[in-house]
Amino acid sequence: MTYCVAIKTDSGLIFASDSLTNAGIDHVSTYSKMHTFVQAGDRMFVLLASGNLATTQAVVKRLRDDCQAGVQPCLSSVTSLGEAVDYVGSVSAEVQRNQAARDTASTNFEASFIFGGQIAGQAPEIYMIYPQGNYIHESSTHPFLQIGETKYGKPILVRALTIETSLEEAAKLALLSFDATLRSNVSVGMPIDLLTFVADSFSTESVRTIEVHDPYWMALREAYGAGLADLIDRLPTP
Amino acid sequence: MTYCVAIKTDSGLIFASDSLTNAGIDHVSTYSKMHTFVQAGDRMFVLLASGNLATTQAVVKRLRDDCQAGVQPCLSSVTSLGEAVDYVGSVSAEVQRNQAARDTASTNFEASFIFGGQIAGQAPEIYMIYPQGNYIHESSTHPFLQIGETKYGKPILVRALTIETSLEEAAKLALLSFDATLRSNVSVGMPIDLLTFVADSFSTESVRTIEVHDPYWMALREAYGAGLADLIDRLPTP
Repeated sequence: MTYCVAIKTDSGLIFASDSLTNAGIDHVSTYSKMHTFVQAGDRMFVLLASGNLATTQAVVKRLRDDCQAGVQPCLSSVTSLGEAVDYVGSVSAEVQRNQAARDTASTNFEASFIFGGQIAGQAPEIYMIYPQGNYIHESSTHPFLQIGETKYGKPILVRALTIETSLEEAAKLALLSFDATLRSNVSVGMPIDLLTFVADSFSTESVRTIEVHDPYWMALREAYGAGLADLIDRLPTP
Repeated sequence: MTYCVAIKTDSGLIFASDSLTNAGIDHVSTYSKMHTFVQAGDRMFVLLASGNLATTQAVVKRLRDDCQAGVQPCLSSVTSLGEAVDYVGSVSAEVQRNQAARDTASTNFEASFIFGGQIAGQAPEIYMIYPQGNYIHESSTHPFLQIGETKYGKPILVRALTIETSLEEAAKLALLSFDATLRSNVSVGMPIDLLTFVADSFSTESVRTIEVHDPYWMALREAYGAGLADLIDRLPTP
């Protein structure tokens, strides 16, 4: 399983992903699920991946190879986020078709993605790409997108996140959403990759990999637990 | 869908259930999913039901009919919670077998239950009964049980509930767990039946049916939202 979330606020984007992959409970590995494509000053794209690992690796390799070879379209040449996500969705569907074509069983090659970023002079955007290659975007009333094990981490976002939330607060909420998920699903695992993208900055300098014993992560969880207990204590009594 | 939760703390039990049933999104009804069996001063049992409505109604009817007819065993005669839950599990499995025996399609007649209560002189207990009729109980490290749409409402319980939590706090947590669920799943619906059982009290006087515009419910949600926003604001920044 996997958990990835992306948030869009008025001031930028947040991307976060777990790192546990598994093919059966006794075949567990750690792979980053966050892939960045940056041309300083001009464009920045982030891809978060969930699903069949062979599929997601093939998709990422194909996106990078296309840039390298100057194939049209590619992430270096697209002129809008809409064109970019359509290209990524097509690549994903094609990779899955190729895998299925040589399969003799009924293997599930499906993968889902979150794709987002910004091109200079345009607004930042985030999309969720279905295994079929089609996609949806966030909206001002629903400013986040999730893939993988989405349910445990949703209530804190529904409760506390709006399009006006600051990027710092949005980053905290993304991590609290991971905290809720990690406590209930053992197939979602550390480290967490967290990327904070300030609109128009076009850099990925703010990628942070948070390990289990990261002091900030431990302080955040402890402060949230203590604060929540105190809050519940102060709520009106039935 | 359904959401029901039961909590056991050192001082008693909390039971809560939603009231929406549906057979397709255009066939929606309101039925209480909470059923109580009380003999003042001697025993109190609560059954929360999820799954096929014809099955759960037949199970409840059979439990009441057996008491009335003095069939052995029945909820009036059982001498322990363990004997009681085994009897309810057997009734559930038998009802499902009977429904399936006359079915010509492959209809899903399954139902799950939470069953709990107390017999005088013994400790309060709660159980979760699977469609197969077998069951599990809570433990001091996992003092709650859920059926139906369980994921959205779990993080708040995992985070804030322990066996030492007061009954009042546990009731608040059960309602916050419903709040999280109701915001993300439209097939879980108001009103909420909430039963607070103080150990050795053997009454169900504290059953409360909470409608959408219940002033306490509205005040609780508002205070939680405001308190959470304030808490997140005060958490350490990445």
